[in-house]
Amino acid sequence: MAILSFFTRASRAFNGYPASSKLLLLCTLSLSGGGVVAYSESQADVIKTSVQVNEKDSKKKRVVVLGTGWAGISFLKDLDVSAYDVQVVSPRNYFAFTPLLPSVTCGTVEARSIVEPVRNMIKKRNGEIRFWEAECMKIDDANKKLLCRHTSENNLVGNDEFSLDYDYLVIAVGAQVNTFNTPGVLENCHFLKEVEDAQKIRRSVIDCFEKAVLPGLTEEERRINLHFVIVGGGPTGVEFAAELHDFVKEDLVNLYPSVKDLVKITVVQSGDHILNMFDERISCFAEQKFSRDGIDVQTGCRVISLSDKEITMKIKSTGEVCSVPHGLVVWSTGVETRPVVKDFMAQIGQANRRVLATDEWLRVKGSENVYALGDCATINQRKVMEDISAIFKAADKDNSGFLTIKEFEDVVDDILERYPQVKHYLRSKQMRDVTDLLKDPEGNKRDEVDIEGFKLALVHADTQLKNLPATAQVAAQQGEYLSKCFNRKYLSEDNPEGPRRFRGSGRHQFRPFQYKHFGQFAPLGGEQAAAELPGDWVSMGHSTQWLWYSVYASKQVSWRTRVLVVSDWTRRFIFGRDSSRI
Amino acid sequence: MAILSFFTRASRAFNGYPASSKLLLLCTLSLSGGGVVAYSESQADVIKTSVQVNEKDSKKKRVVVLGTGWAGISFLKDLDVSAYDVQVVSPRNYFAFTPLLPSVTCGTVEARSIVEPVRNMIKKRNGEIRFWEAECMKIDDANKKLLCRHTSENNLVGNDEFSLDYDYLVIAVGAQVNTFNTPGVLENCHFLKEVEDAQKIRRSVIDCFEKAVLPGLTEEERRINLHFVIVGGGPTGVEFAAELHDFVKEDLVNLYPSVKDLVKITVVQSGDHILNMFDERISCFAEQKFSRDGIDVQTGCRVISLSDKEITMKIKSTGEVCSVPHGLVVWSTGVETRPVVKDFMAQIGQANRRVLATDEWLRVKGSENVYALGDCATINQRKVMEDISAIFKAADKDNSGFLTIKEFEDVVDDILERYPQVKHYLRSKQMRDVTDLLKDPEGNKRDEVDIEGFKLALVHADTQLKNLPATAQVAAQQGEYLSKCFNRKYLSEDNPEGPRRFRGSGRHQFRPFQYKHFGQFAPLGGEQAAAELPGDWVSMGHSTQWLWYSVYASKQVSWRTRVLVVSDWTRRFIFGRDSSRI
Ligand SMILES: Cc1cc2nc3c(=O)[nH]c(=O)nc-3n(C[C@H](O)[C@H](O)[C@H](O)COP(=O)(O)OP(=O)(O)OC[C@H]3O[C@@H](n4cnc5c(N)ncnc54)[C@H](O)[C@@H]3O)c2cc1C
Ligand SMILES: Cc1cc2nc3c(=O)[nH]c(=O)nc-3n(C[C@H](O)[C@H](O)[C@H](O)COP(=O)(O)OP(=O)(O)OC[C@H]3O[C@@H](n4cnc5c(N)ncnc54)[C@H](O)[C@@H]3O)c2cc1C
Repeated sequence: MAILSFFTRASRAFNGYPASSKLLLLCTLSLSGGGVVAYSESQADVIKTSVQVNEKDSKKKRVVVLGTGWAGISFLKDLDVSAYDVQVVSPRNYFAFTPLLPSVTCGTVEARSIVEPVRNMIKKRNGEIRFWEAECMKIDDANKKLLCRHTSENNLVGNDEFSLDYDYLVIAVGAQVNTFNTPGVLENCHFLKEVEDAQKIRRSVIDCFEKAVLPGLTEEERRINLHFVIVGGGPTGVEFAAELHDFVKEDLVNLYPSVKDLVKITVVQSGDHILNMFDERISCFAEQKFSRDGIDVQTGCRVISLSDKEITMKIKSTGEVCSVPHGLVVWSTGVETRPVVKDFMAQIGQANRRVLATDEWLRVKGSENVYALGDCATINQRKVMEDISAIFKAADKDNSGFLTIKEFEDVVDDILERYPQVKHYLRSKQMRDVTDLLKDPEGNKRDEVDIEGFKLALVHADTQLKNLPATAQVAAQQGEYLSKCFNRKYLSEDNPEGPRRFRGSGRHQFRPFQYKHFGQFAPLGGEQAAAELPGDWVSMGHSTQWLWYSVYASKQVSWRTRVLVVSDWTRRFIFGRDSSRI
Repeated sequence: MAILSFFTRASRAFNGYPASSKLLLLCTLSLSGGGVVAYSESQADVIKTSVQVNEKDSKKKRVVVLGTGWAGISFLKDLDVSAYDVQVVSPRNYFAFTPLLPSVTCGTVEARSIVEPVRNMIKKRNGEIRFWEAECMKIDDANKKLLCRHTSENNLVGNDEFSLDYDYLVIAVGAQVNTFNTPGVLENCHFLKEVEDAQKIRRSVIDCFEKAVLPGLTEEERRINLHFVIVGGGPTGVEFAAELHDFVKEDLVNLYPSVKDLVKITVVQSGDHILNMFDERISCFAEQKFSRDGIDVQTGCRVISLSDKEITMKIKSTGEVCSVPHGLVVWSTGVETRPVVKDFMAQIGQANRRVLATDEWLRVKGSENVYALGDCATINQRKVMEDISAIFKAADKDNSGFLTIKEFEDVVDDILERYPQVKHYLRSKQMRDVTDLLKDPEGNKRDEVDIEGFKLALVHADTQLKNLPATAQVAAQQGEYLSKCFNRKYLSEDNPEGPRRFRGSGRHQFRPFQYKHFGQFAPLGGEQAAAELPGDWVSMGHSTQWLWYSVYASKQVSWRTRVLVVSDWTRRFIFGRDSSRI
């Protein structure tokens, strides 16, 4: 009856209040009953979208965004839609919070808790963004046209294909799983890239257990079915291994006690250490934790083929080839460019590259008005040595053939902005002052340098060039950066904001994109995590896991998903993870 | 930081406490932070199950239960497992709370919230019940053997088939969807029977909307894609129609405003009214509500065929045939016997029947030690007129050829218990006293009747025979009844508990199964429901919906699902339903 009266009160209270007040009301109601349920952000009332472009819009520049992942959504978040006619194309009508995907594989968090419908997000923007659930099949660069196709299992009427024209194109389609053409991988592996992948893994893990306990199997057969192999010792593979280990240890051994000693988890890594993109201390901590947990880490092993029953590997050091039977394999080794982007690259003279290249302003090289960000592109940072003569010439105002400290100081900010590798170089050499660069080889201060001396000073700076990692952090920052550029496009035409052009005259319209690294987590199971924090800090253990919880809760894209994720964690604490095979 | 500190406190508190105390602790913790999260029942510590039958068990009678639906699970719930060696076979390793399935189709409730893993339920029984995730393919009645097969998408090692021997078999496999051999139904319809069906409908509804808003479709095409047809005006079909209407009205029109006026929902019903198994007032209320909501109800229409684009119906009254284009069709017209049961029926001489018949003790007719309950069987209630002479003879103690009031009163309790239709007959004739039966045709009391008079008194009683409805309520009561019989099997051999045998001597070992009807709900959307309550009470409107919430929350099989279902309802109130296509 308590529930009944709660809902009756809630219902009465709800009638006559706008949606935006519902949450506050419910909080009040449930507080008086002893519990807060949730908070929500208030939602602006909805204004209709229209499939037809209206009069005013037709004069606006048409921006088409491909993809609704981290990059696409963060671009849309702050974009000033009053200035553009914006259309978004993505085969998934939701944004997925990928960092929690490994948690979905074992039901620590539910799939629905980490997705937010795109339409929910754009409806708050007063409906001025139109969304099409479709895949872009072809980018026609010459005609500024896109060919898109809606795909669904259901046989609905009307053409699935349509084309869109654009003035500006923002490519944010992410990347696809890379099998490195290893035979058998596509047919026999699970991946961990999409929400559906995580759901499928979850079902399959339960399948392995249900099959393993059936009457009539030999112990060896039970053992094989319970051999879980993860190929790839990067953050995703390691996190999945840790999640799986927790799921087995905390939940499944109680439900399948007869086979609890037959479970084995193996991580296969081609490098010498797992998590080798992290600080060494973290790799080491992770390997020790896994060894205590009984997770088998096979480093220096390359998978050469796969069948539905066996995985064949080559041990790099000895060249030996061995085959191991498995129950389930998760392939998590890296990403490659999607076909639609490959095709586009061929059109714009990037056919020989592996990844689509942009400049530091995220503009695709070789194409006009096309931008690319996130996992689908890399920034080709300009080398300082390519421009060294131009820089010298521009800096040497009096054309004396010598650069004085004063002349150098006048251009140094522009150099650091345009060639951030110089900043990293200074830091790596522990130079406090930029003018230290101009010291002579013995380390003595000089008042001026000639072109050769200047070249010598910066000759090693470009070694600091590094591609940005394919992470959500990078994608999100790029999206935010690009939307700011779009918002100030007209403004900054007359008031350019960027560094001076050394090869031309004037300034660049915008500052180039600069990535700020806020650190990265590696959850390791058993309520422990490792983290690389800014400033080369490293943090490991239980408290890091709590930091992880708080960061991941705060980073959710909506109050809805935040409430759901936190309540999923709570549910898991109380009731454990669900083992129903759905 | 609030979240972080909450979890840190929770974590410290959790270490060192058994699982059973976790919830209490969390309540305390969160109360001090201002909110109660949930309660949980304490779980007994787990004792290992063993795949091998142990020494002691091998002397116990082997009971195999087929199915983990309402009937199977309620049978297992109270079964005294110390007396039997119990094995359970079901292709799904969870129990699903079917009455909430329609809510899953639109995301009012999540699929995971209405399922409970079978192993969770049997682990509480000290692991003495063994569960196999497999389908029973064949019942071999002569050899008391079952052939079972595990089915999974994953190619795991070991034989998928195994056989089981039984001493007692409990068939609770439910029924399957009945297409009445209508062409095109299997290929082009959605069903609403399993959890996966509901998930698939949810995805497809979103598909219809995403397709309908694409550029380049004509208005007619958009309209067709948004035409949702429900075939079958029973409780499930009607509830789904109502859910869908709410989903569209409360959530989807805001997200797909351009097509909000093109949506159409049609319910096709072959009878004259929807919900025609309910009281007339309810049918009428539902039809009026649907008409106000703009849901089109087409009664007196039979579907004769279906294609992926069109549904063809015959209007019964005029014989006219018409075809209507559709976007999605949900087929919800009734159930039929599963093939494995059909095959079993052929073995035991029930080949000519449509449904497996049992006696009033749920024993399958024509087989030894096999029981059937729930949707897969019907009770063949014995007609009182078949036994009328035997009853007369047994009652007429002095063999006078006349039955006195006193003699009748001596057997009347046994009659009412053995032939419950007599009770219903009395009620239908508004007879307060059983002896009223013996009155003469003019209604005058008689002191005694002869065999002809006795026959005349009961000749219409059998008209009250009715098959029990295929509902969760019936299945659950049968499961509970049968487990009680099993628990008292040995006890009651010497002390039979049932009514006297009129055709033989002594008493029946058990009382026959008797169904108690606690009423039935029909949710109609817009926070309104109708209900048939015991004693011919009818209740309709908003308050009935609150009653529905409270009953359905209280009927959940575990605290976990209860908490999840209630929090799903709450989530829906605050944030609406999720429209992500996953
Ligand atoms: C399991 C997992 C865990 C991760 N954990 C972390 C983490 O903890 N921290 C972190 O920083 N990063 C993490 N990452 C990496 C992070 O998810 C990616 O770097 C990030 O998603 C890249 O963003 P994106 O927008 O470029 O691509 P995505 O997020 O992949 O989005 C691509 C979008 O494009 C759409 N699309 C695809 N093809 C087409 C097409 N032809 N036309 C139109 N649209 C298309 C897709 O549907 C999708 O919406 C993780 C990744 C995975 C898979
Ligand atoms: C959408 C929907 C809504 C409903 N709403 C209500 C309601 O509100 N109130 C109400 O009272 N009733 C309702 N019902 C009806 C109710 O669900 C059924 O009457 C009830 O489930 C019957 O119980 P059962 O155990 O006989 O069969 P089921 O619950 O169907 O269970 C059958 C079990 O047998 C298993 N099985 C199937 N084949 C085999 C095989 N070959 N070998 C072994 N196992 C097998 C299945 O996996 C399942 O576990 C609803 C039904 C549906 C579909």
